Amino acid sequence: MHSITGVLAGDRFNIIRNHEFVDPVSSRFFMRTEFTGDADRTPLCESVRRLLPDGAHVRVLELEPRSIVVLATKEHHCLAEILIRHAYGELAANVQAVISNHELLAPLARRFEIPFHHAPYDGGRREDHEAALASYIDRYAPDWIILAKYMRILSPQFVERYGGRIINIHHSFLPAFAGADPYAQAFARGVKIIGATAHFVTAELDGGPIIAQSVIPIDHTQSPRELAQAGRDIEKLVLARALTLVLEERVFVAGNKTVIFD
Amino acid sequence: MHSITGVLAGDRFNIIRNHEFVDPVSSRFFMRTEFTGDADRTPLCESVRRLLPDGAHVRVLELEPRSIVVLATKEHHCLAEILIRHAYGELAANVQAVISNHELLAPLARRFEIPFHHAPYDGGRREDHEAALASYIDRYAPDWIILAKYMRILSPQFVERYGGRIINIHHSFLPAFAGADPYAQAFARGVKIIGATAHFVTAELDGGPIIAQSVIPIDHTQSPRELAQAGRDIEKLVLARALTLVLEERVFVAGNKTVIFD
Amino acid sequence: MHSITGVLAGDRFNIIRNHEFVDPVSSRFFMRTEFTGDADRTPLCESVRRLLPDGAHVRVLELEPRSIVVLATKEHHCLAEILIRHAYGELAANVQAVISNHELLAPLARRFEIPFHHAPYDGGRREDHEAALASYIDRYAPDWIILAKYMRILSPQFVERYGGRIINIHHSFLPAFAGADPYAQAFARGVKIIGATAHFVTAELDGGPIIAQSVIPIDHTQSPRELAQAGRDIEKLVLARALTLVLEERVFVAGNKTVIFD
Amino acid sequence: MHSITGVLAGDRFNIIRNHEFVDPVSSRFFMRTEFTGDADRTPLCESVRRLLPDGAHVRVLELEPRSIVVLATKEHHCLAEILIRHAYGELAANVQAVISNHELLAPLARRFEIPFHHAPYDGGRREDHEAALASYIDRYAPDWIILAKYMRILSPQFVERYGGRIINIHHSFLPAFAGADPYAQAFARGVKIIGATAHFVTAELDGGPIIAQSVIPIDHTQSPRELAQAGRDIEKLVLARALTLVLEERVFVAGNKTVIFD
Repeated sequence: MHSITGVLAGDRFNIIRNHEFVDPVSSRFFMRTEFTGDADRTPLCESVRRLLPDGAHVRVLELEPRSIVVLATKEHHCLAEILIRHAYGELAANVQAVISNHELLAPLARRFEIPFHHAPYDGGRREDHEAALASYIDRYAPDWIILAKYMRILSPQFVERYGGRIINIHHSFLPAFAGADPYAQAFARGVKIIGATAHFVTAELDGGPIIAQSVIPIDHTQSPRELAQAGRDIEKLVLARALTLVLEERVFVAGNKTVIFD
Repeated sequence: MHSITGVLAGDRFNIIRNHEFVDPVSSRFFMRTEFTGDADRTPLCESVRRLLPDGAHVRVLELEPRSIVVLATKEHHCLAEILIRHAYGELAANVQAVISNHELLAPLARRFEIPFHHAPYDGGRREDHEAALASYIDRYAPDWIILAKYMRILSPQFVERYGGRIINIHHSFLPAFAGADPYAQAFARGVKIIGATAHFVTAELDGGPIIAQSVIPIDHTQSPRELAQAGRDIEKLVLARALTLVLEERVFVAGNKTVIFD
Repeated sequence: MHSITGVLAGDRFNIIRNHEFVDPVSSRFFMRTEFTGDADRTPLCESVRRLLPDGAHVRVLELEPRSIVVLATKEHHCLAEILIRHAYGELAANVQAVISNHELLAPLARRFEIPFHHAPYDGGRREDHEAALASYIDRYAPDWIILAKYMRILSPQFVERYGGRIINIHHSFLPAFAGADPYAQAFARGVKIIGATAHFVTAELDGGPIIAQSVIPIDHTQSPRELAQAGRDIEKLVLARALTLVLEERVFVAGNKTVIFD
Repeated sequence: MHSITGVLAGDRFNIIRNHEFVDPVSSRFFMRTEFTGDADRTPLCESVRRLLPDGAHVRVLELEPRSIVVLATKEHHCLAEILIRHAYGELAANVQAVISNHELLAPLARRFEIPFHHAPYDGGRREDHEAALASYIDRYAPDWIILAKYMRILSPQFVERYGGRIINIHHSFLPAFAGADPYAQAFARGVKIIGATAHFVTAELDGGPIIAQSVIPIDHTQSPRELAQAGRDIEKLVLARALTLVLEERVFVAGNKTVIFD
């Protein structure tokens, strides 16, 4: 760490913010340095890498808006949250397009003048559906693909193709509920909190590295419909939080875990 | 409901507080009425029952301290929370005794002048261990048995014997972790919140009706040791909250769910 | 209470939900009964009033969408939250119009096809500005006027005119900060949480009955700009929560306090 | 920063954890480095200071338990929380003594075998009372003095004497309430959350740098007595959190603000 910042200082870069973390279990070292300066950045990555053991992962990035594509199905709340924040400059992102297996959200995308692509799933082969998705996505070559309540399970091949660049939001219950209509189940079980988890998508469904989580308290008087509303409220906030962290390059993935420098 | 409060009014009881709830799914009706008055309460239960369909469950109770027995193992935090609140009149309970399969917490019970019974599990038959527990418990005929981090799984027979009168606290993770040392697993998985659930104990392990739940936010910088501390902090608060609700007769169990009038 | 529900039962109304509360300090009694039924409701209010002491306040209302008008200035977040929820049927309200002393939010209203009226304050007399506001408002005769970050102080005369029908959201700090740019002050003071309060507007600035409050944790690393973002996030959720409660007629005002049956 | 860690590396110290922060407003730089190593630490402070501009503040400390003295009055909850955590090694502190202007908490201190000193305030001169307090405190030369609900206002002279080493906990309301019995006022005002703030004590009453804050939700059904219980619950957790941070030397004071490296 000492020698890394030395490289920056030697090149007359000005360090704005610096975070470090040593995972006490793996002894892996994580470091994020934010800096400014007019010097040539081209040799920087290589200079730093030379200081580090083989296998160290070094990235030098501009902090500028990333391009994102949003996949959604029928629920509006997460997509609307992204579109509003985007419209008012609250996300460091360019929302390039909305892609959906349904047409229901087309008017919402249109309100914010974002291209909407309909990639219906007609009950045929998943490969075909995912090929359609991919052809829309690849038009934009996005930095990030956001599953804003996209309700179809993606194949490991699809996940692999966009390796590590897909972010998902899903509701979280304590205890977890398998099967259909978890809000009806949560109501039946009388749970007292419901939550949401935003995570990177890996081949293991809902098992990727967690970016953000939060919960809200509920009680027995709330109907399944009201639980679902509470779920939407927490989902959209958690997704927005996760996106902000990712877009500002504050999230490091290590194995199945995130280190977040916020 | 109308006719029930009519019985109370007719007998010149003074209604202090009244809660009602109709479960929109099961159409079951729940009602809790707190009242005072000098009239004879003996006929009350029968008078109310006569107004209701067969199978309705009616209880008329004095709101006075309940007797409780606490089971613990080695961790002090939940037991200490109960003992402190008990010592300062913050729980509507008489803590009769602490029973443990270890001796480690004996000094803590002694500090608060509460009898401590050691019921060791020596690797023999579970039936024998549970018989020892039961013989201590039955000495006190407690209203409630509190598992304040009692770390042995109780047999369905034992749970049945004290049907519905056992309350447990356990940590809750999103996602859930099976196996040993969940805090190490939570650390390895990089979870962002950890929680606690207090529930009634049923034959289905950790699956009984939920009384209280809460979470606290954590992050990657917290070591497994610090996560465990955060877990203790939330567990003791959630257990205290659940106990307060139960002791004040605010918790109704319906199937595998609670209705809580707080 | 007994006799009130008796009136409903006698008229063959079906009680769906019933809440009661006796303020232990003032001994005032509050009751909210939700019911359905085809019988004539016209005489209901009078029948109930006859049962009650003089001065009791009785209202019989249809639970149907209320009409609202939103006042805003330059900040988009609360207005956008209302428009999105409105567009997707998540608020029991008809948003009639947006009125602003600036033009900045006109495009946002337009995106959702809601009329936008510009009532500029040109540095002249407050009376004239408020007369312009009132003339726009009165066109819609709204049930509720929502101050969604309307940044001008309203005169007691204006507040009086719409007595009890104005709802405001404002940020809340611990400690409170007077003067300009509270987020810069909160940053300078190193506060650890920031919050928001939604309340009814009374002649006493920011002193009306509280409907909803919440906070989010922050820390020293968050810049004033990030604190402001956190503030926006919590403000819009608290306002949406307050609106939901008010629109469903769950909020009773008693003196300078609310009783909320949720 | 680069040069500082260079000093450590040159002396063969092993850096465990490193935090840095540049206040974007004041441009002040804060750094906390945790390290181990057998080398002589004596010259370290001087070596680092030589690298820094005049006026830089450098401290080299052992991370070992600090000695603390607790001042309390009649309320038990914060004192009990400290004593329990201390008894079970959850605080990096040696609790040396409890000092109180009342005798009520003597039995609690005794339960945990901590010396208790009674320094009554008999209505005489504040100077005399504070001299008595100081004579007890100075017996222990504590690193930190904890006001665990000590209910007398300390003079600026007293605060000055223990400059920067006094930590206080107090309840926090939104809005703030002046005068007696804030819980009764909070009830009368119908607030929806109550909180607690732990801070360093400065001559300005309750205005010192904030270490930790949190809130809990409440509602109109909770009596003033129940609000006070909720207040106790949150106060003890916030104080314990603040103590943990301070005892682990994670809190830096800068003007009237804290920078916390947790």
